[in-house]
Amino acid sequence: MSYSKYMKGYLGERELLYKLYDKGYVVLRSPRSGRIGLPTPDIVAIKKSKVYAIECKSRNIAFVVPKEQLNQLKEWVEKAGARAYIAWKIPRKGWKFISLEDAIKNNGRISNRFCNLVGKNFEDIFS
Amino acid sequence: MSYSKYMKGYLGERELLYKLYDKGYVVLRSPRSGRIGLPTPDIVAIKKSKVYAIECKSRNIAFVVPKEQLNQLKEWVEKAGARAYIAWKIPRKGWKFISLEDAIKNNGRISNRFCNLVGKNFEDIFS
Repeated sequence: MSYSKYMKGYLGERELLYKLYDKGYVVLRSPRSGRIGLPTPDIVAIKKSKVYAIECKSRNIAFVVPKEQLNQLKEWVEKAGARAYIAWKIPRKGWKFISLEDAIKNNGRISNRFCNLVGKNFEDIFS
Repeated sequence: MSYSKYMKGYLGERELLYKLYDKGYVVLRSPRSGRIGLPTPDIVAIKKSKVYAIECKSRNIAFVVPKEQLNQLKEWVEKAGARAYIAWKIPRKGWKFISLEDAIKNNGRISNRFCNLVGKNFEDIFS
């Protein structure tokens, strides 16, 4: 991954972390460098025992969430009782959230069109 | 911090993460390098919406948990409903867990004697 791509992802994640924190969630970011072979989403946010596991994407166009990442989120749903989402930062549109369930149904393929159908806004999920 | 001290702490945390994972928890480690000014424990472990926030220490003798770390754990208790512990890896004895409540009562001072009074074993907490 190029440095500018990395920075774009990093700054996006950071922005989302602060948005969540401002809403009263405690948050954890898991930088790739800190992982040790265990299932780990990019961001975990918790409020009053409600756990959210979030995989972040900053892409201009459509993308596919790798099967391995979908499975890791699934493990968080099954073991922790987490609600899992793919968070997509769409240029000039802001964050959209696709539930893990919807992402799996579509084999991990996320496009603008699919996102218009099933994507949710930050405010729809995090109150 | 010296490199060998850092490695000792790192390997200790890693061991605890795997112990928790083996017990069915999903776990997150938060390396210092990944923190962005938000309250963050060393380890977060979750099973069925039960959240544990853990600050790890690898010291040979008594130590004081900084007030700031106690306050960060408190924030996790209040916002996330987490159970918070200081995890102390005592040489040749293994892990002992001191509840945040007990640690605060003792102004963050943790000694062998205090740990004998209030410390719990891994198995007492993580079933």
